Amino acid sequence: MDKIIENLRNKPPLVHHITNYVTVNDCANVVLAAGGAPIMADDVKEVEEIVSISSVLYINIGTLNERTVESMVKAGKRANCLGLPVLLDPVGMGASRMRNDTVHRLMNEIYFTVIKGNMSEIKGLYKAERNTGGVDVKDEDIVGTENLAEAVEYVKKIAREFDSVVAVTGAIDIVTDGEQAVTVRNGHPNMSRVTGTGCMTGSVMATYVGSNPERPVDAVVAALVKMGLAGERAELEMKNKNEGISSYKRYLIDGIDLIGLEEMKEGGKIEYL
Amino acid sequence: MDKIIENLRNKPPLVHHITNYVTVNDCANVVLAAGGAPIMADDVKEVEEIVSISSVLYINIGTLNERTVESMVKAGKRANCLGLPVLLDPVGMGASRMRNDTVHRLMNEIYFTVIKGNMSEIKGLYKAERNTGGVDVKDEDIVGTENLAEAVEYVKKIAREFDSVVAVTGAIDIVTDGEQAVTVRNGHPNMSRVTGTGCMTGSVMATYVGSNPERPVDAVVAALVKMGLAGERAELEMKNKNEGISSYKRYLIDGIDLIGLEEMKEGGKIEYL
Amino acid sequence: MDKIIENLRNKPPLVHHITNYVTVNDCANVVLAAGGAPIMADDVKEVEEIVSISSVLYINIGTLNERTVESMVKAGKRANCLGLPVLLDPVGMGASRMRNDTVHRLMNEIYFTVIKGNMSEIKGLYKAERNTGGVDVKDEDIVGTENLAEAVEYVKKIAREFDSVVAVTGAIDIVTDGEQAVTVRNGHPNMSRVTGTGCMTGSVMATYVGSNPERPVDAVVAALVKMGLAGERAELEMKNKNEGISSYKRYLIDGIDLIGLEEMKEGGKIEYL
Repeated sequence: MDKIIENLRNKPPLVHHITNYVTVNDCANVVLAAGGAPIMADDVKEVEEIVSISSVLYINIGTLNERTVESMVKAGKRANCLGLPVLLDPVGMGASRMRNDTVHRLMNEIYFTVIKGNMSEIKGLYKAERNTGGVDVKDEDIVGTENLAEAVEYVKKIAREFDSVVAVTGAIDIVTDGEQAVTVRNGHPNMSRVTGTGCMTGSVMATYVGSNPERPVDAVVAALVKMGLAGERAELEMKNKNEGISSYKRYLIDGIDLIGLEEMKEGGKIEYL
Repeated sequence: MDKIIENLRNKPPLVHHITNYVTVNDCANVVLAAGGAPIMADDVKEVEEIVSISSVLYINIGTLNERTVESMVKAGKRANCLGLPVLLDPVGMGASRMRNDTVHRLMNEIYFTVIKGNMSEIKGLYKAERNTGGVDVKDEDIVGTENLAEAVEYVKKIAREFDSVVAVTGAIDIVTDGEQAVTVRNGHPNMSRVTGTGCMTGSVMATYVGSNPERPVDAVVAALVKMGLAGERAELEMKNKNEGISSYKRYLIDGIDLIGLEEMKEGGKIEYL
Repeated sequence: MDKIIENLRNKPPLVHHITNYVTVNDCANVVLAAGGAPIMADDVKEVEEIVSISSVLYINIGTLNERTVESMVKAGKRANCLGLPVLLDPVGMGASRMRNDTVHRLMNEIYFTVIKGNMSEIKGLYKAERNTGGVDVKDEDIVGTENLAEAVEYVKKIAREFDSVVAVTGAIDIVTDGEQAVTVRNGHPNMSRVTGTGCMTGSVMATYVGSNPERPVDAVVAALVKMGLAGERAELEMKNKNEGISSYKRYLIDGIDLIGLEEMKEGGKIEYL
């Protein structure tokens, strides 16, 4: 954890996002709060140049369209050429054929350092299944203590097959490169009552991985701890003041700014399996 | 009111938005705060599939463009086929020929369960008039106590003609299916000092109608009460703390989360005409 | 200052934005907080009509794409025909050939009343240089006390060449029409830890210039004072309450709403050179 944060401070990353227009402002703000600098650019004519001045590329298909899919492919290929880490968030995977086809195309043409999503998205990616639950995890895909061991094995298999770090977010987050597996149990259910906490998690991951391209598992775990603690802190703040979910969101982003290394080391509920 | 909220709790709707990029984040957050789940998707290749897994479709032309207009048409037609409710927010109707043409095309090709807007937008929709006031209501179109009866008759006529529930928002909201007319007098003028309160109102309406497709008038009235009370509550909070309009917005969205059924029944200033 | 604010109150401007999707919501909200009304529209089919009902046009290339570049050109030309002020924010100028080409095309085809940016962007605009720092100012371009005189002369030269008011934002803001030069030393470094403070500054400028088309220098200076004071106030509020950067953003926008003329006159650190 120390090394991850030290690298972040020493070389703050420029994080190129090609992402959805719903949560993009929050993504930019969490990158800044986490210590990086965001740049959002999605025109096919400029993405290769933009990625070439960046430290890392984060592709999020939340509101994909035909125009930006081409940009994702171009930017991703260029990032691969340059040896930059690339993260994929297959938002809503399974909700339409277009999302499935896009993700499969992206995965064929681009090597992803990290793939993150909820269990339904990651399953959809692996099995090309239809997900009728929109962008949220389906009930049957929720990971709990009882099915954790099985879920970890499943995600490890996917990680090996894709040769990527796979991060499955949920009450228990699972991070694995196919060999090593780590769980993180921070966070609070209210995080799912704010739009874009998944995207923001992706942005924090990209920020951390951008400064730590050689340690993607540790960087992703640190990002999950940071987000989770921010979600826990926000709950206390909101409850203390009898406020609602918009205040929760504010405290969540404040937390990304305020929670320091010591707090992450003490509060992180990390388990190496 | 009880039935509306009970249905919402029993089957939280998935609310498909094709909307503008200015206020889309707030729309997603108010759907969550109101008890639904948002999904935003606007590519012509996927909107039919997305709407088919949704409970309701909300079309808002705030930042329309040629690409998304086609998506609106496709999604709306599919929703009609599936018997799903569809809401229209003709933002800025009258401000350009493109907006007028688009709305007329949408109304020709799609049956709308609910059409909502300020009086200038609704008039523009009916009379195809040019509105030079941007996206706000023109002074001469404001509904007050003195011209209320006349306005109600006018809106009823429009509702009958379009065979839709029409909701005109303002200091006095008017909701009618052409037969029954209801007014709601909740809210606060500061709501118009936050961008997107109109869009957010549409999103809350869509959430409520999504769980109550058979009772669109009651669902729309309940949504207006919720938004109006949230606006009143936000005013108190902001004034109490000597804060400004960005804090007002936070308290407004908090209110959608915090205001419960009892408060809605007690605080709702509803009149059945 | 009095005249600027008086004109704003007497004829609140309708501010047409063609801007990026990252910070557009905040831009709309600061226009409202500053006393104007925002309208965002970017389809090539409607921008000429939209600008014709507006008081001022603000073009920001933050997330430019081929579709909206055409809209920028059309809207700008029409605004010029109508004698409306037009502001340009060449976000990320120098970060890609597309940005450079676009800005040069815009400057060839449109007369800009005001061009604003950080020093790296303004330099890039003048020298067509590559900026590898993303959207932030490069270290070597930062204006401080030691190189201020030189920087002012440089910006004056640019302003004369472009026949526009040029506003360079930073710790020390420089505003000049090529003859008169003014510096503003309000603000706080935390402003750069919130995404879009540059865009929001552009929106406040556009609001003020929209009501004061004959006094662009004074209007721009007043806007910089307002933003700067809001940034200073936000720092106090945040520190007082031990909060983080998301709270800072809220207090910043609150400040634009709450800071009045007297406070601007007292707190403005303006110097006429």
